[in-house]
Amino acid sequence: MESGERDGKLSLKRIQPVQVLALGFAGVILVGALLLMLPISSRSGVVTPFVDALFTATSAVCVTGLVVVDTGTYWSTFGQIVIISLIQIGGLGFMTFATMFFVLLGKRITLKERLIMQEAYNAFNLQGVVKLALYVMGITFTIEGIGAVLLSTQFIKDYGLLKGIYYGIFHSISAFCNAGFDLIGGFRSITPYVENATVTLTIGGLIAVGGIGFAVITELLHIRKTKRLSLHTKVVLIVTAILILGGAVLFFILEYANPKTMGNLSMKGKILASLFASITPRTAGYNSIPTDGMTTAGQFLTIILMFIGASPGSTGGGIKTSTATLIFMTVIAVVRGREDTEIFKKRINKAMVYRALAISVISFTLVMVVTFILSITEQGKFIEFLYEATSAFGTVGLTLGITPKLTTIGKVAVLLTMYAGRVGPLTLALAFASRQQLESSSIKYPEDKILVG
Amino acid sequence: MESGERDGKLSLKRIQPVQVLALGFAGVILVGALLLMLPISSRSGVVTPFVDALFTATSAVCVTGLVVVDTGTYWSTFGQIVIISLIQIGGLGFMTFATMFFVLLGKRITLKERLIMQEAYNAFNLQGVVKLALYVMGITFTIEGIGAVLLSTQFIKDYGLLKGIYYGIFHSISAFCNAGFDLIGGFRSITPYVENATVTLTIGGLIAVGGIGFAVITELLHIRKTKRLSLHTKVVLIVTAILILGGAVLFFILEYANPKTMGNLSMKGKILASLFASITPRTAGYNSIPTDGMTTAGQFLTIILMFIGASPGSTGGGIKTSTATLIFMTVIAVVRGREDTEIFKKRINKAMVYRALAISVISFTLVMVVTFILSITEQGKFIEFLYEATSAFGTVGLTLGITPKLTTIGKVAVLLTMYAGRVGPLTLALAFASRQQLESSSIKYPEDKILVG
Ligand SMILES: [K+]
Ligand SMILES: [K+]
Repeated sequence: MESGERDGKLSLKRIQPVQVLALGFAGVILVGALLLMLPISSRSGVVTPFVDALFTATSAVCVTGLVVVDTGTYWSTFGQIVIISLIQIGGLGFMTFATMFFVLLGKRITLKERLIMQEAYNAFNLQGVVKLALYVMGITFTIEGIGAVLLSTQFIKDYGLLKGIYYGIFHSISAFCNAGFDLIGGFRSITPYVENATVTLTIGGLIAVGGIGFAVITELLHIRKTKRLSLHTKVVLIVTAILILGGAVLFFILEYANPKTMGNLSMKGKILASLFASITPRTAGYNSIPTDGMTTAGQFLTIILMFIGASPGSTGGGIKTSTATLIFMTVIAVVRGREDTEIFKKRINKAMVYRALAISVISFTLVMVVTFILSITEQGKFIEFLYEATSAFGTVGLTLGITPKLTTIGKVAVLLTMYAGRVGPLTLALAFASRQQLESSSIKYPEDKILVG
Repeated sequence: MESGERDGKLSLKRIQPVQVLALGFAGVILVGALLLMLPISSRSGVVTPFVDALFTATSAVCVTGLVVVDTGTYWSTFGQIVIISLIQIGGLGFMTFATMFFVLLGKRITLKERLIMQEAYNAFNLQGVVKLALYVMGITFTIEGIGAVLLSTQFIKDYGLLKGIYYGIFHSISAFCNAGFDLIGGFRSITPYVENATVTLTIGGLIAVGGIGFAVITELLHIRKTKRLSLHTKVVLIVTAILILGGAVLFFILEYANPKTMGNLSMKGKILASLFASITPRTAGYNSIPTDGMTTAGQFLTIILMFIGASPGSTGGGIKTSTATLIFMTVIAVVRGREDTEIFKKRINKAMVYRALAISVISFTLVMVVTFILSITEQGKFIEFLYEATSAFGTVGLTLGITPKLTTIGKVAVLLTMYAGRVGPLTLALAFASRQQLESSSIKYPEDKILVG
């Protein structure tokens, strides 16, 4: 049907990048953990326990942001530079791999003509990989540079020239990579800047751009040439806008009078805080208002947004906007009595809907199982466990405060969830895509039905 | 494809029974509420407030079992007889309609040859309905009669002859209809009988048989003649067994040492209590150990079981065992790289999988929305709201204790959820089934794809 399908030689190679990704991530995490254990990494000069170093390294490489010790006060400048390097490697590495994967997948899904950059990757070879990595790096550093300058204008005022620039760079990288690590201190994230438009809008903007995915960024950068957007980009942009604005309105209503969050803010502060509260669960991990002070409804809304997450091929996690949209539109199709899922007058085939279903169900099951484990091993409230598990799976990094208090089993469970949440969905998507080709020719059973509902 | 499809005249009539069901239920609920408001219905002779009477009547007709006042102590014997009548009408009415619906649907889904009783309904006419209703009633009363005799052997010891028989009949009806109403008093459900095998096994058995659905019961009753089971019956029996036994083992482990639930019971008591705790969320509503004393993990497990619920065409609710199985097997198919969902070497077509997906997603969304509403209107913990919303949707009737304390908005929300949970899924299933036929001939859009995962 599509040109790429005929390239039989691709099907085996297609498995490889994911294995490289999974092992590469594990390797970087281990090296990072060992570096963080060194006495020079901690401010007090102690050797950090392995599980805490491993947790921090995993959280950094998987751009999650959950921390068992406070980044700004526990780690030395050396330790912080290790962390931000891990974030940059994790973010870039993942974006490069994810883009590469989607370029490959793109061949099969007729986005081919639309993704400008794709022409460079007709052959999946080393030259192509280097070129792609350089391209992704170029755009990443450009955006992070702009973010760092904007943030520095504020941070220099607060921390002096050198530290201000350092903070600007650190938080810009952390925000664009959707990592959520901060240096503000005391597990406060960026709450001191809740009323500050420069900081919250810059960080919010970096998060949002980092979260829409490289394929979409590339397409938008070349819109003048191509004059039209792919179905994927249209869906991602519209759904992202709906989630951000809809979420902001709900947070505004829910938290308006809550003295623990927005109750005492100015109107401008309330609007900024609502917007930020809506952007951050997908999947940044910064917070400008205290997460544990939120209303139960606000915390629940955060959990739902964390589960949906960002868009494919981005630094963000979750089941992804496009997956959620596909599921939603399939429900609409069934309700309207249509035979196929339709988006913007385009039909989506069964294989893709089944894949979206599988990703959603596996993700949901993972979150449920981890919540279940935490509710056995930890002391606390159910919503704290559900929040933590969803945050780890979505590589979000928000917490209701239980991360530093986790038992060792809890830490390992959360750590593995972050890794699975980062590497897993892509691996699954890729594995599904190639398996389906391999086995599609085998025997078919007779059709039968069972009753549902 | 199937014989029923050719009967064009059926397609319009097929909508009708559901409308009759929805309106009929609403009518019975209203009459029940008015009867319960009467001074003779309450033990103290007061006029019961409309919202509480409506809540109780809805809970009874929708065989849920959530109560705002204690059934055994608040209502007079007259009030209790009104309630058990509502339960019997709700349970029978629903089973009759559901069976009728599935007999009709059965024509389209090739169960035709397998369901013995179906031959009576080649034409959907008044005679057929009466015959079917009599058949359902006959089996129902037989099973309830056996249950009442078994329960009475214990209750006569505790309450004397007359009251013992009355209690036997009341609880047998309530159990088989999966209604969960009890007369034990003090919102205790059957906790005083936690160590009593006669009571817990009889009630557990009635719940399980009531929950597997009439189509399955009928097939099992005629197994000697037919010699083989349909795919639907196989799936329902196996999944029900897995859920009951798997759930029991988990509850046994989780609650073994919990002094608030099973910690102080004998080994026999622990086993009985684990088994009962596993049966009751799907979707009986009785409890033999205190729900609010359970571990967080145990409560969470209960929520998951409540959401899955019973089997189609039964007195139980939830998304149904078969729907959950279809979703699960679709995930397996995707992981295995198969093009189609397969169960016991039978292919399941896309339309059915999409329908299962739609039912699951709509149900899940409903539970989320109600939980969200409760977390705004009520005081309490998140898990209490999630538990209550799932219980109402699944017409289960278990609660962590917040039902009697609900605000009026909360009561109305829960009441509407019980109604939606009872009538909704079937209506949806039927509406989807008929719509799909009506519109399947309309225009097709060109195929396109988006990225998922
Ligand atoms: K993050
Ligand atoms: K019930």
